[in-house]
Amino acid sequence: MNLRGEAERIVKEAIRQVLPDEAVFRALAGKKFGSGRIFVAAAGKAGWQMAHAASEALKGRIERGIVVTKYHHARGEIPRMRCFEAGHPVPDDNSFAATEAAMELAFGLEKEDTLLFLLSGGGSALFEKPLVSGKELAGITEELLTCGADIVEINTIRKRLSAVKGGKFARLCEPARVYSILLSDILGDPLDMIASGPTVPDSSTCRQACAIAEKYCLRLSPEAEALLRLETPKTLENTETVVMGSVKDLCLAAAESCKRLGYEPVLLTDQLCCEAREAGSFLASVAKSHQDSEKSLAFLAGGETVVHVTGKGLGGRNQELVLAAAEGIAGLRSTAVFSVGSDGTDGPTDAAGGFADGGTKARLAESGVDIYKALRDNDAYHALDADGGLIKTGPTGTNVNDVSVLLIRRGENKRSV
Amino acid sequence: MNLRGEAERIVKEAIRQVLPDEAVFRALAGKKFGSGRIFVAAAGKAGWQMAHAASEALKGRIERGIVVTKYHHARGEIPRMRCFEAGHPVPDDNSFAATEAAMELAFGLEKEDTLLFLLSGGGSALFEKPLVSGKELAGITEELLTCGADIVEINTIRKRLSAVKGGKFARLCEPARVYSILLSDILGDPLDMIASGPTVPDSSTCRQACAIAEKYCLRLSPEAEALLRLETPKTLENTETVVMGSVKDLCLAAAESCKRLGYEPVLLTDQLCCEAREAGSFLASVAKSHQDSEKSLAFLAGGETVVHVTGKGLGGRNQELVLAAAEGIAGLRSTAVFSVGSDGTDGPTDAAGGFADGGTKARLAESGVDIYKALRDNDAYHALDADGGLIKTGPTGTNVNDVSVLLIRRGENKRSV
Repeated sequence: MNLRGEAERIVKEAIRQVLPDEAVFRALAGKKFGSGRIFVAAAGKAGWQMAHAASEALKGRIERGIVVTKYHHARGEIPRMRCFEAGHPVPDDNSFAATEAAMELAFGLEKEDTLLFLLSGGGSALFEKPLVSGKELAGITEELLTCGADIVEINTIRKRLSAVKGGKFARLCEPARVYSILLSDILGDPLDMIASGPTVPDSSTCRQACAIAEKYCLRLSPEAEALLRLETPKTLENTETVVMGSVKDLCLAAAESCKRLGYEPVLLTDQLCCEAREAGSFLASVAKSHQDSEKSLAFLAGGETVVHVTGKGLGGRNQELVLAAAEGIAGLRSTAVFSVGSDGTDGPTDAAGGFADGGTKARLAESGVDIYKALRDNDAYHALDADGGLIKTGPTGTNVNDVSVLLIRRGENKRSV
Repeated sequence: MNLRGEAERIVKEAIRQVLPDEAVFRALAGKKFGSGRIFVAAAGKAGWQMAHAASEALKGRIERGIVVTKYHHARGEIPRMRCFEAGHPVPDDNSFAATEAAMELAFGLEKEDTLLFLLSGGGSALFEKPLVSGKELAGITEELLTCGADIVEINTIRKRLSAVKGGKFARLCEPARVYSILLSDILGDPLDMIASGPTVPDSSTCRQACAIAEKYCLRLSPEAEALLRLETPKTLENTETVVMGSVKDLCLAAAESCKRLGYEPVLLTDQLCCEAREAGSFLASVAKSHQDSEKSLAFLAGGETVVHVTGKGLGGRNQELVLAAAEGIAGLRSTAVFSVGSDGTDGPTDAAGGFADGGTKARLAESGVDIYKALRDNDAYHALDADGGLIKTGPTGTNVNDVSVLLIRRGENKRSV
């Protein structure tokens, strides 16, 4: 297998491990639920798959369930579950109706019961029942966004205006136990930030909420004002939470895959956060310094880079990272960099990411493609395409950020670029 | 010792290892010169120190020497050596006169003799004797710079217009042996790029030189035109070259120093080349992912980052890297990032670089300093200064690029930020 083939295999194996189905299967493997009944509430873009996987894994043990996912994301009936499709990223009446159904289900639970809560990306909009009118909620959110509030500030307010966020859904389930499986797409996995944490203790306080309202001079109804002063649950005795399919899992799965191919994996970070092309240059700098290694090495960096678009080309952050790396690793023997988004969609393109090796720059030059120019135009897609360097997986059904890998093949398996 | 104290010690120990004197002492330790005479030619900003160190190391064995350094860089007499001061970065008549003196010295060498060639940064301008007029050389260089030729292209032309570059000085020394000690400030150490390699075989060709002249429509005199067609030495039988005090040595020395302090060093790269602040963010990403480590870790990256200045503040690439990292490592326990230029001068400031730890951001906020704003203004100097985060070494007398270090202190020596 050449480096390109290895890259395709690593991508495939890594993404497989973070698919919603696989994540749910792993989280439920060996899990004991006691003799009580099991109910399901599933919310998020992967809500249907997660609920379906739970249904498969727990074969007939599920009493009843509520599923809410994005429009066109339900793929059919699931036994004993009611599936809703609703608005995302802006919640709509269907979001509220589905969440109310889940709340009703919660009200009927008894001490021996378990509520299996399955949460994935998009859950913030899809799993919502505001304590103010939908219109007021939308207005306040809009106001916060306009005045530059950050996501932590916005969530601190929204948790208090919601009937389910900030740990309140878990409280509704009392005295039953809540077992949450979270499919995370937030770097570093702060539990109460994932969909504003319906089933985890809230770390924000009323005091903070009021300070934010004051800081941005929010216009609030008396009802909303009163809600900001109602404290959210700070401890929850009835919950257990596992985070699955996070970018960390993606990186670890990629590292395992590299290992099986004979590379020694080095996980640099699973919280990468910088300009995409500079991350590519950084990885290329690492590549240059390890050319004398006797072992085959794989350096991995997971997370989410950013692109400041100034050109009019086509591309995505993974493609840009790879194209910048192609410049830096030009001429290096048996060295490659590839990077993909786990959702299979990198920017507004049909590619999941890209691949480049030590020969990419020279081959592109022969085709008349200049890497600097392509980067200046934010046109990584066409540049990589000219070298067959696009990686296409199609939509994967998961979204746990990106993984970038630098491969340096050495030793017995030496081969030319 | 706290993290700040450790950083100061690592900086001091690392720079000491790459000082010109130290580099020459190490390169000459145990070196056998046979029974012939030893002559010295030293060129570059560290020319005087290198020649002085050689004189000390070889105690009276040196027959005669020529030293050429930048104005105000000679520090006195060295026994049996003639010291010149000359123009840098633009060569002047003193450069030419000094280089002619070195050429004369070369002419007189015999088979058993050794020419000890000591080269450091700035040697390109200081060690030069053009085969065309100084005026034409300056004009051609200017033309190449104006039309956007890169440094490899410029050197390919200049090697041919010079009596000493591109391996020609070593040829002049034949049949004597040439032992070159190079103090490198070029990433990755391509030997024939350091001052255009007076004593190493040239990898560029006449064909390439003519193509470059054609590409940029250079206006050349008939003499210059003819010189482009004269091939430079492709092999040299009489030379031996060691590269000392490179950024790699700087990184290895820093890594050793970290080890002595109980850290496990991980050398990410000694050829770092990307935007300074993004390198800082990358290191911070690495920091976040290794907080659970049980061992104390030190991640090192050497090289030379760049800053695209858009603001009007004060700073340098090392300070900007550190300030960006301060944002990323905010709140992390016993974690610090520091970065310094080995010459002791970071940008147009009196600092060598900067230091930040997990508490820097909070302390700066208390002082009313906003990291984002400071970065936007390219004002890392004042921001770091507000937290006592500048590292000042004074001019060190060496220049082998920068080293950036991420320290994560764990285990028995745990301490709070």
